[in-house]
Amino acid sequence: MEGIIIRPGEKQDIPDLLRLIQELAEYEKEPDAVIVTEAILTEDAFGTNPAFEFFVAELDGRVQGIALYCYPYSTWKGRYLYLEDLVVSQAARGKGIGSMLFEAVVEKAKTTGVKRMGWQVLDWNEPAIKFYEKYGADLSSEWLNGRLYFE
Amino acid sequence: MEGIIIRPGEKQDIPDLLRLIQELAEYEKEPDAVIVTEAILTEDAFGTNPAFEFFVAELDGRVQGIALYCYPYSTWKGRYLYLEDLVVSQAARGKGIGSMLFEAVVEKAKTTGVKRMGWQVLDWNEPAIKFYEKYGADLSSEWLNGRLYFE
Repeated sequence: MEGIIIRPGEKQDIPDLLRLIQELAEYEKEPDAVIVTEAILTEDAFGTNPAFEFFVAELDGRVQGIALYCYPYSTWKGRYLYLEDLVVSQAARGKGIGSMLFEAVVEKAKTTGVKRMGWQVLDWNEPAIKFYEKYGADLSSEWLNGRLYFE
Repeated sequence: MEGIIIRPGEKQDIPDLLRLIQELAEYEKEPDAVIVTEAILTEDAFGTNPAFEFFVAELDGRVQGIALYCYPYSTWKGRYLYLEDLVVSQAARGKGIGSMLFEAVVEKAKTTGVKRMGWQVLDWNEPAIKFYEKYGADLSSEWLNGRLYFE
């Protein structure tokens, strides 16, 4: 699409990454849930033991979307790609940026050679569900997410 | 408990790890779903870029349980611990091995300093759900698992 560039995220993108993470938290009505900082994100993406990678979408020179992913482990399938978050700024929706980011991550999974790509979507988020179904994704509801939180 | 030892998994435990992974796949009626091998598991646990860690439970000198975990990334909370599989051999159930393994993983999460520990449980697996509720776990059903599989 005109004026849209998808590229791997770099150190100088961390402020934009955090801005979009925060924007999503506000959209999901959890504005105080974000405890990562620019320093933490920088260390975890570019330090000695990287925990995640990300793509950014630039629209007219400004970062308006991000897709953040990591590589957890499936006992059956081995290392896989997990898309943790895909965010497009409210101001830049409807231009196909979400599709371009999602497709970049699918390509990354294929070239990395993992056998599976996973993510989660809220069961009330109809537009997102329709979006993923277009890609032939398997959307399963039979699993519960178990969580424990620590101080 | 008498005769039960919980300890970090080592290279020589890989055959037992794969045996228990396969046993779980058969229990979940997906005997052909396991595509990892001893070689893949060894490389992914002990190679240059480790993807997972695991605990084993020995009962009278034989490995009868495993808990496998990895460290994915949450955009809100940072690096967290994800318990991918907890398996106790059919032959060794009812002895508290599952609790001991789960508690070892919780301790690991706390000492590692992550803010969250996560896992998934099938929504029809009442004994497992009751088990996790005892620990005060948050069990949420509002998320769908999205997946794409590659050749």
